[in-house]
Amino acid sequence: MDIEEVGKKARKAARLLALLDSKAKNRALELMAGSLVKNAETIISENGKDIALAEKNNLTPAMIDRLILNTKRIEDIAEGIRQIISLADPVGKVYDKKVRPNGLKVARVRIPIGVFGIIYESRPNVTADAAALCLKSGNAVILRGGKEAFHSNMAIASALSSSLKEARLPEDAIQFIDTTDRSAVLGMLKMNRYIDIIIPRGGSELIRFVSENSTIPVVKHDAGICSVYIDEGADFEKAKNIAVNSKVQRPGVCNSAETLLVHSAWASNLPKLMEAFEAEGVEIRGCERTVEAYRSATRATDEDWDSEYLALVMAVKMVDSMEEAIDHIENHGSHHTDVIVTESDERAEQFVKAVDSSAVIVNASTRFNDGGQFGLGAEMGISTQKLHCRGPMGLEELTTYKFVATGNGQVRG
Amino acid sequence: MDIEEVGKKARKAARLLALLDSKAKNRALELMAGSLVKNAETIISENGKDIALAEKNNLTPAMIDRLILNTKRIEDIAEGIRQIISLADPVGKVYDKKVRPNGLKVARVRIPIGVFGIIYESRPNVTADAAALCLKSGNAVILRGGKEAFHSNMAIASALSSSLKEARLPEDAIQFIDTTDRSAVLGMLKMNRYIDIIIPRGGSELIRFVSENSTIPVVKHDAGICSVYIDEGADFEKAKNIAVNSKVQRPGVCNSAETLLVHSAWASNLPKLMEAFEAEGVEIRGCERTVEAYRSATRATDEDWDSEYLALVMAVKMVDSMEEAIDHIENHGSHHTDVIVTESDERAEQFVKAVDSSAVIVNASTRFNDGGQFGLGAEMGISTQKLHCRGPMGLEELTTYKFVATGNGQVRG
Repeated sequence: MDIEEVGKKARKAARLLALLDSKAKNRALELMAGSLVKNAETIISENGKDIALAEKNNLTPAMIDRLILNTKRIEDIAEGIRQIISLADPVGKVYDKKVRPNGLKVARVRIPIGVFGIIYESRPNVTADAAALCLKSGNAVILRGGKEAFHSNMAIASALSSSLKEARLPEDAIQFIDTTDRSAVLGMLKMNRYIDIIIPRGGSELIRFVSENSTIPVVKHDAGICSVYIDEGADFEKAKNIAVNSKVQRPGVCNSAETLLVHSAWASNLPKLMEAFEAEGVEIRGCERTVEAYRSATRATDEDWDSEYLALVMAVKMVDSMEEAIDHIENHGSHHTDVIVTESDERAEQFVKAVDSSAVIVNASTRFNDGGQFGLGAEMGISTQKLHCRGPMGLEELTTYKFVATGNGQVRG
Repeated sequence: MDIEEVGKKARKAARLLALLDSKAKNRALELMAGSLVKNAETIISENGKDIALAEKNNLTPAMIDRLILNTKRIEDIAEGIRQIISLADPVGKVYDKKVRPNGLKVARVRIPIGVFGIIYESRPNVTADAAALCLKSGNAVILRGGKEAFHSNMAIASALSSSLKEARLPEDAIQFIDTTDRSAVLGMLKMNRYIDIIIPRGGSELIRFVSENSTIPVVKHDAGICSVYIDEGADFEKAKNIAVNSKVQRPGVCNSAETLLVHSAWASNLPKLMEAFEAEGVEIRGCERTVEAYRSATRATDEDWDSEYLALVMAVKMVDSMEEAIDHIENHGSHHTDVIVTESDERAEQFVKAVDSSAVIVNASTRFNDGGQFGLGAEMGISTQKLHCRGPMGLEELTTYKFVATGNGQVRG
């Protein structure tokens, strides 16, 4: 596979995609959803090869489960594409209009970014989700999935690009790198002439590799070391529900909580709260004072404060002030999602101002930092960086803008 | 100088800056402007050292002129800072508000990006401009200027940071790297823990070095290979004024035009237009048909179509269709600023849609792609990349956002 050639074709396709109206893109998405269902048998059979390899390589049952595709799961993927059809198309939106004193009309217009490079290790549904989001936002995409889902990804990609042909759109709008060779990734990361943005989705090693080697701007979807801080005077039931939900509702994802910070003036409630965690099977790793107050907790090590467990483990620390909680979040958090539970509007406001995370949430679960929950529709992931977009990366965040100025002969004096 | 220590201090200062209101920032800017004027004598004397070195090193008179600081120029720099005071502060702006079906209130809030690293080769006024823009937008900044202006930059930076002290703001909000050692730049580019954004301003070699070595997101201010396309049926006077102004009004800057594309159906006007260029001292390098139509033109080589002359030289090409012009811009332009001169609204619209540049301008000079001209106020420069911001980078583009969600106990089911 000539990676340079892939890039050239993607750039060419992107120029055509940028000119499409929403109707043409939605029609292609409808065909893509249909094509997945129509090709379900082939996809499931190719998926079988990945599963067999996974079993041979002794992947954990949880990992194998995430790889499995069956009719129901393929229908769910197709349904996900149909939901993207129903979302508003951001491309072409005109905003920030001005008429300058010399009569020049200036505005910004939303346009596709161009060519996406997505490097992922996740479940095979990402192949379809990412391709559909890129197409809807008028972008071409080069996909490079993990080797564990290689056959499944290839089958899905082939079903998708055949429907592009049927929709008379450029087939190269969705290209899949048909090799698991790492040098192909390195090649992608240097193609700043043809790729406009790289999105790595996966473990921290992948994200580090991409950040260090890419000459193309990267939007990272990095680790979530998310905290819940329980303020003095917080309502017990509210605090308990929010803290427990943040940890246990889906512990394996980035917006689940890893750290609980409890104001010492609230600490008489700590044992009862810890029991609620234990009832959900959560292992508690506490600071010295937490362990004193709740003997079933084990003592946390320095590493615990910097850990993204993605499991039923919670690090718990007692603090003597909100400032101490904020400092802990600054020094140990990952600027992803942080929550305060408080009955004081003033203190909520202080916390929101001082904590620099993609989402700061007052009196609700960390799990709400999500494109669907925040009302953005489907998302490409959750950006943990500060430039371009933060938090959920929805359709609008998959676009950029250009300035358009219209005059009648103006020149500069 | 311990570059790691500089980073740590900047991060600490940034946390405090983020909490300041506009009044406190404007007061500091007022003191900064005053301090430059008060310290003019010292700055001019330090500037003398740079000038002496420049003469010794045989820099061109134009380059030396750009380095010179005198009382008038220092007052202009101070005036520039006062203009930044008058601009609206983007920090704290709440937008995109929603109430979700579960009652969760979601909004985006504009916040500072954090710590800027600015690496520049330009005139010493950049030191003050960049520092003032960063402070107004609540960001800390680490400045690394070119060696030609080293003494001038140090004197300016020292005048600025002394006024931070007077304003009781963290002095480390503005730090200047007091070495011209290139390893300090490399050190900066790897400090992704402390620096949030790198802005290189300077020649293409600097920009390439930064892009290839930075592990921190970069917003490039790269070359401007800008075109003016004269459509069939374009008004002669309009076309002449716009094309000539785009080239000659200030040929040394990125938004001046380098290429003229002329529809062959308009070409009978070409000799008259070329005379207008020649009257302004512009050297014409034409395609074969241009040279046939206008014998004083020299023949352009392949290199000419990809050149940012920044001088009184214009590459001129005849095309047989607007599509050919658009293809030329795609293949040879730098996605900076491109202009169409036309009497057809329909064709203007097609051009605007198909040309992917930071600014696409209809019937006006390329020179309008500028923060002041587009009504953004002062600018950090013109971004030539697609992520985060495109075109003029004003105060709002020096900020990012976070999501703030407020509930009353919501959890995910």
